[in-house]
This record gives sequence, C-alpha cells and structure tokens, in this order.
Amino acid sequence: MRIIRNIKQMCKASKKARLNGQAIGFVPTMGALHPGHLSLIRKARYENDKVAVSIFINPTQFGPREDSKKYPRNLKQDTYLCTKAGVDIIFYPDTKEIYPDNYRTYVMVEELSDCLCGKFRPGHFRGVATVVTKLFNIVQPDVAYFGQKDAQQAIIIKRIVEDLNMPLKIKVMPTIREGNGLAMSSRNVYLSPDERRDAAILYQALNLAKGLIREGNRDSLDIIKKMRQLINKKKNAKVQYISIVDLENLKPMPKIEGSVLIALAVWIGKARLIDNIIVKLSNCHG
Amino acid sequence: MRIIRNIKQMCKASKKARLNGQAIGFVPTMGALHPGHLSLIRKARYENDKVAVSIFINPTQFGPREDSKKYPRNLKQDTYLCTKAGVDIIFYPDTKEIYPDNYRTYVMVEELSDCLCGKFRPGHFRGVATVVTKLFNIVQPDVAYFGQKDAQQAIIIKRIVEDLNMPLKIKVMPTIREGNGLAMSSRNVYLSPDERRDAAILYQALNLAKGLIREGNRDSLDIIKKMRQLINKKKNAKVQYISIVDLENLKPMPKIEGSVLIALAVWIGKARLIDNIIVKLSNCHG
Repeated sequence: MRIIRNIKQMCKASKKARLNGQAIGFVPTMGALHPGHLSLIRKARYENDKVAVSIFINPTQFGPREDSKKYPRNLKQDTYLCTKAGVDIIFYPDTKEIYPDNYRTYVMVEELSDCLCGKFRPGHFRGVATVVTKLFNIVQPDVAYFGQKDAQQAIIIKRIVEDLNMPLKIKVMPTIREGNGLAMSSRNVYLSPDERRDAAILYQALNLAKGLIREGNRDSLDIIKKMRQLINKKKNAKVQYISIVDLENLKPMPKIEGSVLIALAVWIGKARLIDNIIVKLSNCHG
Repeated sequence: MRIIRNIKQMCKASKKARLNGQAIGFVPTMGALHPGHLSLIRKARYENDKVAVSIFINPTQFGPREDSKKYPRNLKQDTYLCTKAGVDIIFYPDTKEIYPDNYRTYVMVEELSDCLCGKFRPGHFRGVATVVTKLFNIVQPDVAYFGQKDAQQAIIIKRIVEDLNMPLKIKVMPTIREGNGLAMSSRNVYLSPDERRDAAILYQALNLAKGLIREGNRDSLDIIKKMRQLINKKKNAKVQYISIVDLENLKPMPKIEGSVLIALAVWIGKARLIDNIIVKLSNCHG
C-alpha cells in the first residue's frame, strides 16, 4: 500500500491505473476510520481493481464555531486498517496542498444545502461539495462510496455528480451500527460510557417513527413530537432538529407519502450525533 | 464533422478518442462564430488530434436584465465555418440537456467574479464558471482555448481549473481585431456602420493608456481620467467602467507596477463592448 501526500503523484497513479484499464474505487474520509468506513472500503475492494482512500480533515466544511483541529485523528491505526482491508493507495494531503493561499473556487448546491444539518452548520455543505469535487478530479475514480449515515451529504454529492456531469458513479451504503443501534461515527469517541448508552436513543426514536408510520400515522408533526418526547427522557440528550423530508428535494413533508427521509441531530454531552432512516410507505402497509 | 446534441453521445465520443490516445482540443463558444473564435479553432486544430467546438448560449451567464434569447445565432454559418476549419465535433446541446428541471449546482470563484464586468453583470461569472465546469467534464479535453478579449473570464477559468484540480490545460490566445482596432465579438453585429467606426475608440483609449505608461505615468486615476475624456468625445459612446488592475487578483492598482490589466466596458449605441490590454512595466521603460 502506498501513502501519497501530493496531488500530482495521486493524479499520476490514477492515470496509470486508468490507462491499464483498471477500475478505481474511492472512499473519501476524514480519517479516524471505524467499521462504517471499513464497510465502504470492503465494497470498493470487491467491486474494483484499485482502491483509493483519502484521509483529509477538510477545514472548509467546519462551521465558524467548529474546530477542525479538534477532529479525532489516528493515522497509524487508519494505515493499519487500510492495509488489512487491501487498500492500494491512501491519499493523505496536507491542508495547503488542497487549499493553497490563493484558493478561491467553491461548489454549492442550492436548496439542498441550507436545510437539515445545513441550517445549523452554515457553509458545511459548500465545503463538502468543494472538497469532494476536487478529490473526484484528483483521484478520477469510477465509483465513489459514501455512507447512508450522512444522508444529506450523500444526496448532495449525487446531485453534484449529476449536475456537473462528472464521469463517475456514487454508491451509498447502509449505516453500520453498534450493538445498541448507535450509528458508527468518528465522533463517538467523544462519548463517555454512559453517554454511549444514552446515544442509542437516536435510533430508538427513528424506529418509533417507523412504527408509528407502519400503524398508519401520516402526520409528520405528531410523529416528530413523539420522537422528541422520547429523546427528552434522556437528560444527557438535547435535540437539535428532527425532520421528515422528501427524499429527493429534502423539503419537509407535513403529510407522509411515498418515500421519506427521517433525519435528526442530537447533542449527547459534547458530541453532536446524527442519524436517519428512509421509510418507504409501500413497505409500511399492514 | 459530427454534430452531437446529447451529453451521453458527447461523453462517449471523447472517451473513445482518449482510449485511442488522441488529444482533444476544445473551444467552448456561444456560436455566432467570428475570426476570434476561428483563431482559437485553428490553434486547437494545430495542437490536437481531435477538435471539439461547443455551441451553447448559456442562460445562467445572462444577468436579470439581459436576454439570452436575443443573443445572435447563426448555426448554418457556424457549421460551415467549423467544417472548413477541420473541426471534428460540434457539441450543440439544448438548454434542458445542460440544465434539467431539478438542476441546482453552481461553481463560483470568490473575489475574481464581483469586480470589473462582474460588478455590472451580477451572476454572470457564476454562470460562466458553472457551464465551463460542466463542458469540461462532458468533453474531457486535454486543452481548452479561450480568447484574451474576455480577460476576466480567462483568469477565472484558469483559477477554476487550478483550484478544482481539473485535468486539462487552458490556453488564452490574443484578441483578434478588425482593421480599425475594434475587438472581434459576436455582439459587433449590433453596431451600425457609424457605431462600428466609433467603436474603435475602445482600443484607442487602451493604446492611449499604454502610451502614457510608456512615457512614465504611473498614476492609474489620471490615466483612467484621460481615457474617459478620449472616449467621451464620441457622442455614441458611454463608459461603463475603466479599470487598471492586478493581473492575478484583479484588484485595482492605484500606482502602476509590474504587470497590469487595463480593461474597459463601453456602450456604443445598444451594444455593450469590452476590451483590454496587458501592460508589462518592464516593456515600458524608455
């Protein structure tokens, strides 16, 4: 496995693979790899000739009151996990390599970026859209893999690829969960053992919603109210938002029909956790 | 020569060329081709195995009070000129092919887009940046050619390609002028014979500035004042802006040093005309 720190080297490596007719699978990450990332890497390994993983803590996707410097890092462990998983290349650029001093170009996706998490993290999805566009141009993958846990991110990235006519496919893989239902996240390291137990409430609330819909409840506001009541029972937990939205345009759906995304962000102690499920109404009859 | 109207077909054609190891030269246009475009096409023809020209009147680069529907069109003549110039492919998509109904992604270049022409055409360079990014992803050229006449556009596009790590080169070719110095532009068709004569004043003003700098004048405001006085002698002419700016960041340079871009926009009757020259101080001593 190679660790490449330089854009030119990375371009050269992917150009070589392409000229050899090899398909490149790509998993962009901010490091601190967990079983969620590894499930993406395994899928990429299974479906492609070459697998590239990027590790880059992208400063432009952190909001004004968020600190990218505090984001968990563990390169040694990440390298070990990637080697074991059969990754060919880790692309690990430093910040100046990606954003030199005169950097000025940004990619943004209107409407999809200002709701849900975007409402509470201004500029976040502009940063995500920009870095992902750059990474796709550098790595030139055939397929890039993202986790359903970051549902809004996945929807925005699919939109960018389609809108900007980028020559790759996006695959979104299921959320990987701990035994108690807590979605795997690099941010889970911020949780104390008690908080980690309480954090299971996010998934329990999502399942409550699914159950209510299955029983015939179509009133989003009522469902959200009941989810909020459940979460508020945990004194460690503070709801940031709970939304039930259209799966395509992320607009709130007061009356549930078709497929909906149920998404939420909850503070558990010092960790802001997110989770979501997709509920298809056709699956919920009877 | 093929005319391709569909994105998928265009992608397929350029993929085939690349797999055959052929270099693709690309000239993006809005049609109504003139000798300026043809100089780019000739250069592309000389330097590449395949030449693609796009003809697309991009609605997102027209401002709120501008009408893309009134932009000059002449596909028959364009096709004739391209055939004669040895173009391999004209990419001629319709608006919905480039911007389907759920289109939402935009590329923008901060700082460089809001000055000079951008100040008077809000959103213009966001539209240019977006469509050019899309066209580059669709056509996947090795080199794309632009004219120096649209100096700000060329600087912004070079910035995008560098910032977003797009795998192509940008070449900027000299402005082609009519006998009286008027820069070639599709918009020149709006000019009456009298106006066309008067329109030579743009280039005369630029040359006045160059002469003043050569004589040792380093005071941008004074030079701009003299250019304005010259242009105002033509009663058909109305200055929109005259600026002397840094060639890299497009910021005004009150005191001239190094290389400067002298750019102006002038209304001549109903036509908004632009022109510019680069003056390198090292060339102007003595």
